[in-house]
Amino acid sequence: MLTALPFSLYYGDRDTQPIVLSSLITIVAGVSLWLGFRSTSDELRAREGFAIVTFGWIGASLFGCLPFLLSGAIPSFTDAYFETMSGFTTTGASILAHPEQLPHGLLYWRSFTHCIGGMGIIVLSVAILPLLGVGGMQLFMAEAPGITIDKLKPRISETARVLWGVYILLTVVESALLWYGGMSLFDALCHTFGTVATGGFSTKTESIAHYGSPFLQYVIIVFMFLAGASFTLHYRALKGDIRSYFHDDEFLFYSAMTIGCAALVAMLIPSEAVGSLEARFRASLFQVVSIATTTGFVTADYGLWLPGAQIILLVLMFIGGCAGSTAGGMKSVRILLILKNGLAEIKKLVHPKVILPVRFKGRGVSSDVISEILGFFGLYMTLFIVASIFVAATGLDLLSAAGAVAATLGNVGPGFGSVGAVENYAHVSMVGKWVLSFCMLAGRLEVFTVLVLFSSTIWKR
Amino acid sequence: MLTALPFSLYYGDRDTQPIVLSSLITIVAGVSLWLGFRSTSDELRAREGFAIVTFGWIGASLFGCLPFLLSGAIPSFTDAYFETMSGFTTTGASILAHPEQLPHGLLYWRSFTHCIGGMGIIVLSVAILPLLGVGGMQLFMAEAPGITIDKLKPRISETARVLWGVYILLTVVESALLWYGGMSLFDALCHTFGTVATGGFSTKTESIAHYGSPFLQYVIIVFMFLAGASFTLHYRALKGDIRSYFHDDEFLFYSAMTIGCAALVAMLIPSEAVGSLEARFRASLFQVVSIATTTGFVTADYGLWLPGAQIILLVLMFIGGCAGSTAGGMKSVRILLILKNGLAEIKKLVHPKVILPVRFKGRGVSSDVISEILGFFGLYMTLFIVASIFVAATGLDLLSAAGAVAATLGNVGPGFGSVGAVENYAHVSMVGKWVLSFCMLAGRLEVFTVLVLFSSTIWKR
Repeated sequence: MLTALPFSLYYGDRDTQPIVLSSLITIVAGVSLWLGFRSTSDELRAREGFAIVTFGWIGASLFGCLPFLLSGAIPSFTDAYFETMSGFTTTGASILAHPEQLPHGLLYWRSFTHCIGGMGIIVLSVAILPLLGVGGMQLFMAEAPGITIDKLKPRISETARVLWGVYILLTVVESALLWYGGMSLFDALCHTFGTVATGGFSTKTESIAHYGSPFLQYVIIVFMFLAGASFTLHYRALKGDIRSYFHDDEFLFYSAMTIGCAALVAMLIPSEAVGSLEARFRASLFQVVSIATTTGFVTADYGLWLPGAQIILLVLMFIGGCAGSTAGGMKSVRILLILKNGLAEIKKLVHPKVILPVRFKGRGVSSDVISEILGFFGLYMTLFIVASIFVAATGLDLLSAAGAVAATLGNVGPGFGSVGAVENYAHVSMVGKWVLSFCMLAGRLEVFTVLVLFSSTIWKR
Repeated sequence: MLTALPFSLYYGDRDTQPIVLSSLITIVAGVSLWLGFRSTSDELRAREGFAIVTFGWIGASLFGCLPFLLSGAIPSFTDAYFETMSGFTTTGASILAHPEQLPHGLLYWRSFTHCIGGMGIIVLSVAILPLLGVGGMQLFMAEAPGITIDKLKPRISETARVLWGVYILLTVVESALLWYGGMSLFDALCHTFGTVATGGFSTKTESIAHYGSPFLQYVIIVFMFLAGASFTLHYRALKGDIRSYFHDDEFLFYSAMTIGCAALVAMLIPSEAVGSLEARFRASLFQVVSIATTTGFVTADYGLWLPGAQIILLVLMFIGGCAGSTAGGMKSVRILLILKNGLAEIKKLVHPKVILPVRFKGRGVSSDVISEILGFFGLYMTLFIVASIFVAATGLDLLSAAGAVAATLGNVGPGFGSVGAVENYAHVSMVGKWVLSFCMLAGRLEVFTVLVLFSSTIWKR
């Protein structure tokens, strides 16, 4: 939070005091917790892992919203919490119609929550959730760098060190390119945080549409795409093993899906909405990559595109990026395995006596993982349906309600209808905002991590 | 087809000639096929089973649409085929704005396709698809009456005899009650065919809203509910074992879901749309049962109800009735197992070393069945998405396109938006109608039965 101080002082927007005060409150609370619990045993069990992760995100958002509240920039606690949870979960759904009205320190802090949340998620999805056995993640992460069946703490530290290196490298390179391309350093940094974390908060009302420069848009497309791919692959590529991209089933599926959908969507943009062929291609690619990686940056109001394009974007909100990236959604790998399993079942009907296991990265997928993926898919859809009914009951129309839940559960940001590309979440009722905040959290933590805390057995000694 | 003749002659609507001609063409074609192939061996293999079932439905619709075409009542082949496929698959989606304008013989035939389709589906889902191993059906049907691991033909004959007895009994009783309640015998028969087959074709423009009588509406509610439950349960009940209803996990889930959703929806009907509390309760119960059983009769324009109610109805289109009934959709039992599996996965996270199999009817569910259900769920959703994009590309808006596909794939009938409760499918483009006809067929035959024919391996010798 204190990293926002230089920006606050440089721009002199009178948000210095609330930032310092919020930081002090957070430091005092943190130090108290540390002093109070440092004597506790280091051994973690699974159920403590779930509690720490979930309450960690809830707590971070609680302290993270203090600058907005104390400065009076976002006077409602519900709104401030929604905005901060949206930041830390790298969702990017905003209640601000005009973010540029925020003082610069707060605007920086808003984008920086993406950066912190993205760093958390990378380590969580590569090192912690697989260990806890969440939704088949152990399969996808078996090849993460430096992982051996060993104690929890050294493993997480090692993984974190390596992946944060990649994360910081991407951040530095993209910031430099955006700065070079004409953004101010401040905007370059904020938009980079939004990209690398696949968050989507912009410092501008019109999001990336504010910048007409094709160069800037292509830079953001490339970095969104990279941020939506597995960071362990990037690590290997940096170590010289570029070919590992082409041997990764999930990455190939993710790339093919993105390119295929971009081509389809390009045909479904009305002619009056785009000028040249290049502009049509760029608009489609930008929006498909932005939604597929669950970033949520916007260069066009896709609510005006043909219904076929909107359905594709809605489906991409559910699919999401790759496991081990900062992207949300169900993850490409799960969708790939669901499709492979479907095809295997069709083959099994023709040859009932032949055993045809679903294969992933050259190995057979165990029935345990299939059952975990069905569990994940089923719970994700159930949560989507139940939350949509709740949000609709608070006054949103069918499409807006379903779109808002899909966009928050998938950590995308903008949805459809009244929460669409050029709209925001300010008008959603208070209850609706809390339901959507819960969706962001549940979606971010792979649903199971949060739902498991509602299981009665976890609270038994 | 010839059973339409008495009604044609009695009402004298000049549709006698086309009905007789169509019947003759069908008889000649049938006899030729029988003469040409009767020498073929009786032994059936799985792949022939799939081909016979799928091409059986396609062929029946081809001959079934002749009366509409030859009479000129539905001049377009696409429309006539759509209407007939909708009948035989017990969907009930219609291209007719005013069905009462059809001559009585044709109107009867239109409803009677429901009756034939329903009889086909019952036997198919209880005796044939489980044998073929489609999407986990073997599990649900293990206790069907008179089934032992034996030869195919006697088993199907025996099952058919028993279940058609139940089917005819329901038909006779409902017709009598509707006649007694004030419908003409003709309308009573047609609406009974639409109910017991969970079809939904009505002889009236306003569907059941045409009949204000609460008695008639309650009779139809009860029989829709019965038709959406497993016919093997009804058979057991008729044999005296009423308690088997209460020991059947799927039936309990189906009942609880129907009642729960009806209560929720009742609260989400705007006050101006209904008068008394009883009318509100009846409108909600009728529409929830009609959609949950995938019948598609309508007493109110649910497009005007609150968005929350519409989401519930949309979700019910996907869930559908019970396996072994005439209902469509994914089937309650699969949804129940998906939910049970999800909860089991949550428990497994807390107790990683305890083995907690999903239980159904007192027995553990094998990992093969879980994998088949994931396959079914995945393919159903994929088909829904791909077809929605196609239909949207032909000019429907997002909600109407997704609603039309959900309503045809689930064999419901009316959808949302421009194909909603008080609308029809006449305005859908030709390509759209063929895509939706395919959806009806695929949904009716549990997706796999149709998709398996697209697998290259099935055509190899």
